[in-house]
Amino acid sequence: MRIGVFDSGVGGLTVLRAIRDSFPNVDLVYLGDTARVPYGTRSPETVVRYSVECADFLAEKGIDLLVVACNTASSYAMDVLKERLRIPVLGVVEPGVKEAVKLTKGKVGVIGTQATIRSGTYQRLLESFGLEVFAKACPLFVPLVEEGLTEGDVVERVVEMYLSELKEAGVDTLILGCTHYPLLKGAIRNFMGDVQIVDSSEAVASALKGEVTDEGKGTTELYFTDRYQNLEKMVELIMGERMRTLPAGIGSQ
Amino acid sequence: MRIGVFDSGVGGLTVLRAIRDSFPNVDLVYLGDTARVPYGTRSPETVVRYSVECADFLAEKGIDLLVVACNTASSYAMDVLKERLRIPVLGVVEPGVKEAVKLTKGKVGVIGTQATIRSGTYQRLLESFGLEVFAKACPLFVPLVEEGLTEGDVVERVVEMYLSELKEAGVDTLILGCTHYPLLKGAIRNFMGDVQIVDSSEAVASALKGEVTDEGKGTTELYFTDRYQNLEKMVELIMGERMRTLPAGIGSQ
Repeated sequence: MRIGVFDSGVGGLTVLRAIRDSFPNVDLVYLGDTARVPYGTRSPETVVRYSVECADFLAEKGIDLLVVACNTASSYAMDVLKERLRIPVLGVVEPGVKEAVKLTKGKVGVIGTQATIRSGTYQRLLESFGLEVFAKACPLFVPLVEEGLTEGDVVERVVEMYLSELKEAGVDTLILGCTHYPLLKGAIRNFMGDVQIVDSSEAVASALKGEVTDEGKGTTELYFTDRYQNLEKMVELIMGERMRTLPAGIGSQ
Repeated sequence: MRIGVFDSGVGGLTVLRAIRDSFPNVDLVYLGDTARVPYGTRSPETVVRYSVECADFLAEKGIDLLVVACNTASSYAMDVLKERLRIPVLGVVEPGVKEAVKLTKGKVGVIGTQATIRSGTYQRLLESFGLEVFAKACPLFVPLVEEGLTEGDVVERVVEMYLSELKEAGVDTLILGCTHYPLLKGAIRNFMGDVQIVDSSEAVASALKGEVTDEGKGTTELYFTDRYQNLEKMVELIMGERMRTLPAGIGSQ
């Protein structure tokens, strides 16, 4: 079985790794749109257009199932992608919400990019389960992680700036609604104290258990639309090993 | 006379405003590549490709002179753009350096995006004047400004984190090598104390004085490749008035 995974950049590799941990034998194809990251500050129309281009690229690689690892893309493009592709398409929002529903006592927080939070996709889905929802956009988290800053004074200040209101609201469960955020889990846990943290990457791997047969050659192909400066370092940081990275041409003229 | 100005996003509007202040009658056409901002984290090849697309778009609008307001693009793409276009092309690096040479007693600091600093363009040019140069990439400054954070605790911490070594080195002049940074000038000045600050946007307007005749209808056209969430607010913040913004299709398929 051949599974395609795309994200706006490298963050989705956390999802890829969780899938690999659960399914050692499937063949994985990853596309990171590093030439146009981040998606979280773009308009809905542009997010959908970029998502379609990424999905088409992976579809041409002969995948049997598509995982949309980017929360922003999952918030805006699922309907379009499901209609366009003739294979199962799974986003990160639904698995994260299901996990939160299992864990919470009633008050759920969700954090993500501006676009993800503004879409209201998480909020609507969580509220449909009768939960009280507190949502907060944290636009500096992605640049912090991309800069390699995951702890220390600056990180603590930024975490406090964004999460104070969720802490005061008394959320008992917090969804990390962006694939970069698991890398800040330590700082977030330190500040938030005793809350359940939902990491979508693990939730996605669990959600795949009904859909995926663990068969294949266990290959991993990584494509990126741009080979930027910290790329190899970020890939190693997340995947824990040197990976072969291939260029891709999406968005080029 | 019709002057084209492009930048990776909204930051170049600081340059546009400085040009308008000096030349009330010229016609100005601005392109902000908000669908692909930031350029400062991309590879040199991608920066050049995006720059060429922006320049071509403006060339089709019938401009007589092109200003590359983006420091990253000015660091990598000037040779290609000068060869490609049949009109004068001016970047922001050279005017900023000339201004610094006038002001400094010998120790110059330059700050910019990762790509700008890594290109070494500022450093080479400054060193050719026999100056001692201290360069530092400040990748969180752009996200801070885009988030509307230009003062306060978090900004002060980040400024301290990046600029401590330049302060300790005793630079007497600091070039703001990114069009977003003038919006952090207050915080930078507070931390750095008694240094001369070179704002490229003003330096560019001065450099144009030999090249530009102040004739035209005084029109301003603004194009953006994506209409993202804070766009109108940022345009107002920088231009100080409501401007008509038009969509553009660069990078679309």
